[in-house]
Amino acid sequence: MKTEGGSAAAKRRAGERAATQVEDGTVVGLGTGSTTAHAIRAIGEAVAGGLEVRGVPTSYQSRALAIDVGIPLTTLEEADGIDLAIDGADQIADGDLIKGGGAAHTREKFVAAAADRFLVVADPSKLVADLDRSVPVETLPDARPVVEDRVRELGGEPGLRAAQRKDGPVVTDNGNLVLDCAFGTIDEPGELARGLASIPGVVEHGLFVDMADVTYVGTEDGTDRRTY
Amino acid sequence: MKTEGGSAAAKRRAGERAATQVEDGTVVGLGTGSTTAHAIRAIGEAVAGGLEVRGVPTSYQSRALAIDVGIPLTTLEEADGIDLAIDGADQIADGDLIKGGGAAHTREKFVAAAADRFLVVADPSKLVADLDRSVPVETLPDARPVVEDRVRELGGEPGLRAAQRKDGPVVTDNGNLVLDCAFGTIDEPGELARGLASIPGVVEHGLFVDMADVTYVGTEDGTDRRTY
Repeated sequence: MKTEGGSAAAKRRAGERAATQVEDGTVVGLGTGSTTAHAIRAIGEAVAGGLEVRGVPTSYQSRALAIDVGIPLTTLEEADGIDLAIDGADQIADGDLIKGGGAAHTREKFVAAAADRFLVVADPSKLVADLDRSVPVETLPDARPVVEDRVRELGGEPGLRAAQRKDGPVVTDNGNLVLDCAFGTIDEPGELARGLASIPGVVEHGLFVDMADVTYVGTEDGTDRRTY
Repeated sequence: MKTEGGSAAAKRRAGERAATQVEDGTVVGLGTGSTTAHAIRAIGEAVAGGLEVRGVPTSYQSRALAIDVGIPLTTLEEADGIDLAIDGADQIADGDLIKGGGAAHTREKFVAAAADRFLVVADPSKLVADLDRSVPVETLPDARPVVEDRVRELGGEPGLRAAQRKDGPVVTDNGNLVLDCAFGTIDEPGELARGLASIPGVVEHGLFVDMADVTYVGTEDGTDRRTY
């Protein structure tokens, strides 16, 4: 396990608090990652207690967990809209996010975009004044050279994400590569997001700008809730 | 054959004229479609006559044709840059293009973007004052509902492209769907291009704005060359 103690408790508080927002008869986007997993488990317990919801998973991982805890699943197409999506973040600044540490940000983004409300759950280590983590960029394999050139033109330094327990690079659930692109401090997330989205060969980048409606950040003894 | 007579001759003239621009020792992006096929065949003849080039194909179709006519192939990664790309267009207005009638526009776009110079070849039926064809949008299959919603927000009407000689929809060489999105007359191609690129779940759209360096349009008795 990467985290334990206070951080693990903070994640659990954030995830469980967000899960209380799920209403009967709704469709819920189920994000990926350790904090969101707490929300998914809590929703599973509510389902066992009689709550009727259907989940739209954002990854292989969240689908497996949802099945494991007994949440009935559906698809974006079948559901005709999502009421609420819950997901984590690798970094949060003023409601804007960097996601994609788990390489699932493409599906996470279109599920969040399809949701009426998008709740973000995190532990306090994710909260920053300015986004400055590397931005994961899912890239069509054959387009890598041109994407790397264009990322450099935008001021970033791309690095191909190497896999562990597999030789060579990480391959996403969509069959693509991930370039982790270091831009230093990101002063204008919206502008960078538009620039990255316009690069030919980019499937999706990990900047989520103006998408979060609420963040729940677990603290020592509770949850800090902010709305945007 | 879809075309013949004057139109076929115009396509041949445009393709062959563009092929004369290929210089010895260079790397050439090989586009897709009937007009570009004339260029590929002409390059193949030049190779048979001693021209040394390597081709980067944009599709299964152009790869097969290049092999057939004897053009040595390489990849974007191996080539470390493309000197010249040649490709067709479904519509051309003031150097801006709509592409994707053959569902290969994603790869066509990143190959063109990687090229120092991008030559577009067409017959006169493709030249218009304002772009008004449907814009093909390659879309991750599971994201279709949210992409359709966002296209409508941008003023377009999306239609899933149905396949022929295959039940159900067209599936691209990348394993995705194509939404043909009707916007009527497109007054601001650059703005629409940025809007489409920012939709979660869109892999690539068929608007090529500020990418063409030269267009060669075959005429009754020659070729009309324009630079941008």
